[in-house]
Amino acid sequence: MSLDGLSINLATVRTHYNLGQAVEACVRHGIRAIDPWRDQVATFGLVESARVIKHNGMRLTGYCRGGMFPAADAKGRAAAIDDNKRAIDEAATLGADCLVLVCGGLPPGSRDISAARRMVADGIAAILPHARAAKMPLAIEPLHPMYAADRNCINTLGQALDLCDELGDGVGVAIDVYHVWWDPDLAAQIARAGREKRIFAHHICDWLVPTRDLLNDRGMMGDGVIDLKGFRAMIEAAGFHGPQEVEIFSTENWWKRSGDEVIATCVERYLLASA
Amino acid sequence: MSLDGLSINLATVRTHYNLGQAVEACVRHGIRAIDPWRDQVATFGLVESARVIKHNGMRLTGYCRGGMFPAADAKGRAAAIDDNKRAIDEAATLGADCLVLVCGGLPPGSRDISAARRMVADGIAAILPHARAAKMPLAIEPLHPMYAADRNCINTLGQALDLCDELGDGVGVAIDVYHVWWDPDLAAQIARAGREKRIFAHHICDWLVPTRDLLNDRGMMGDGVIDLKGFRAMIEAAGFHGPQEVEIFSTENWWKRSGDEVIATCVERYLLASA
Repeated sequence: MSLDGLSINLATVRTHYNLGQAVEACVRHGIRAIDPWRDQVATFGLVESARVIKHNGMRLTGYCRGGMFPAADAKGRAAAIDDNKRAIDEAATLGADCLVLVCGGLPPGSRDISAARRMVADGIAAILPHARAAKMPLAIEPLHPMYAADRNCINTLGQALDLCDELGDGVGVAIDVYHVWWDPDLAAQIARAGREKRIFAHHICDWLVPTRDLLNDRGMMGDGVIDLKGFRAMIEAAGFHGPQEVEIFSTENWWKRSGDEVIATCVERYLLASA
Repeated sequence: MSLDGLSINLATVRTHYNLGQAVEACVRHGIRAIDPWRDQVATFGLVESARVIKHNGMRLTGYCRGGMFPAADAKGRAAAIDDNKRAIDEAATLGADCLVLVCGGLPPGSRDISAARRMVADGIAAILPHARAAKMPLAIEPLHPMYAADRNCINTLGQALDLCDELGDGVGVAIDVYHVWWDPDLAAQIARAGREKRIFAHHICDWLVPTRDLLNDRGMMGDGVIDLKGFRAMIEAAGFHGPQEVEIFSTENWWKRSGDEVIATCVERYLLASA
């Protein structure tokens, strides 16, 4: 069976490979799509990254990541906007499908989550003309509510889609099963995202029971409690047929194994779920 | 200033005191409301607990807890219903304001959260006649989405209120700031809970940054990022003026300090927030 529907987010193999080695490993396993992180591209070099990606015919299902808009003062917010414009340019150079936005949490010392949410809306509005000019779609990734304080105050798919409605064209969502699987309104919001042509990316992994760490204890598909087949059926019914991108942060498990074992397991579990 | 608006959930001092000692400590600090857990009552004895509570004129802002309805088979679900009826009887014997329901997560091996949610609705419907006969209000406590798999598949205030609408009289919500503070729909749903006369209890603590453990790293009021004054204002605007119940699970901090220090700090922070 083809692996055209599988992409590897390079956070999944961040402890194993630099960008060039990761591309090689993916090609070796028959995978032709990745999503690299900015620090990985910076370390490997932007021009060299673009060359390796093009040379190997790799699709970039996303580029991780822009965002982090809220800041304690106007100077900090302006710096975030500048940095996001650079991320857009990098994503365009690399030929990514979209720039993934992890929007940011509360500024230090703040208890005003509504204000942080306004800063996010203002920040995206400020970079949107640049993104449209670069023809780079922005994919807002709602993050699990346990990250509301320190990573992202956009915490449900419905909230992200409301933000898209407010912002207009060129903005959509990255739907990661890990962040939204619990949402009682999930089915309705995925259908809405489809109707509004807002699904730009789709990330997979699994929710482990127990989960031992808030950030770095994500599970491999099949090892947790998320109904991945049912989730994928909703995504496809909503009109998104793009690759499923595996994004796993796992300090105590997958990041300790070999890169080959991690990628081989991604392939195996992907095929199992697609059977 | 009066401490009439303060209650101590006895999980907060579970490592320090048995039920009798906890009541003594609260009385010593001028606090006249508590919320004991079933295991604490069982250990101290139901009859003796009721005696100590009445003798000291303590109000019970809740009794923790019923729930845990989903199970892998009909026998398990029937056992949960029986156990919840016993919890209702205990709450009535103790004179509690309500029985708090932590509804339960996925049965072992299940990936079907919709089915778990139906089991919760069916379970509460099954115990509701018993609760109404005992004049014991049932307070559904929506839990943070990070507990959806293993503790409670009711994860937003809106979802809990939808369930109340379906079930009718005798059911309401316990609103714990820790579980719902992040919700973009919070203000609207608190107002709705007030209009529908569904606010039966209100729990407080704080969300720490960073949070080091999914279950037992709750913060003391003021040590985290929740806008507690703003939250309380919404609760009061919705018509609830009952006590704020402090519920803190804290393996590495508060559970290691002395019970007197913990309660004194609860009082101090409560007064600070009420000033």
